[in-house]
Amino acid sequence: MHLIPMDQWPKPYYAVIFTSKRTSLDEGYGEMATKMEELSSRQDGFLGIESARSEIGITVSYWKTLEAIRNWKENSEHTIAQKLGKKMWYEWYHMSICKVERAYEFHLDAENEKRKN
Amino acid sequence: MHLIPMDQWPKPYYAVIFTSKRTSLDEGYGEMATKMEELSSRQDGFLGIESARSEIGITVSYWKTLEAIRNWKENSEHTIAQKLGKKMWYEWYHMSICKVERAYEFHLDAENEKRKN
Repeated sequence: MHLIPMDQWPKPYYAVIFTSKRTSLDEGYGEMATKMEELSSRQDGFLGIESARSEIGITVSYWKTLEAIRNWKENSEHTIAQKLGKKMWYEWYHMSICKVERAYEFHLDAENEKRKN
Repeated sequence: MHLIPMDQWPKPYYAVIFTSKRTSLDEGYGEMATKMEELSSRQDGFLGIESARSEIGITVSYWKTLEAIRNWKENSEHTIAQKLGKKMWYEWYHMSICKVERAYEFHLDAENEKRKN
């Protein structure tokens, strides 16, 4: 979910890569994940979020500034979720805070339009 | 898959976030994805790779330098895979090249050990 199209994000911007392996405890996880995704998207400086999960899960959230990332990390409801995550839901996780240096996009539709013309 | 443990990666290092939506064409995709993951891991400057796919797919690869990323982008077999990807396998993708500013890790086992002591 991107608030505005990615090619309109003001540069530089930042990405938080959260890679995780879940435990077998599902209790409350799904609701909390949905709630946190929704809550993060209402924070100042939020740009977008993407998630996928198969053997491991990867969530990437994008932010205007490092300060916005810090504020979200310290958000009180998010702090509770982080504690529950460590106690119950994650076997391991790692998180990287990154500055996006360059970005590219490809859309098949746009490409086919170009080929036609 | 990480060549050495993440906390031993020399800083600064770089991440390539590749987020994609597949088409319904599966022909050759699985084999090519496996081959490219294997080939990338043998490039100079490669540190690790992580992948997950559900509705969308996210692959993050980690590299020692921007030059290593450029070399991998221009690798001849990888160039062929990129062309096939655009022609057949991806409805859309976007790619971000990032400098990792900070990283954290959590391991439940290590945490439980600490709590016991």
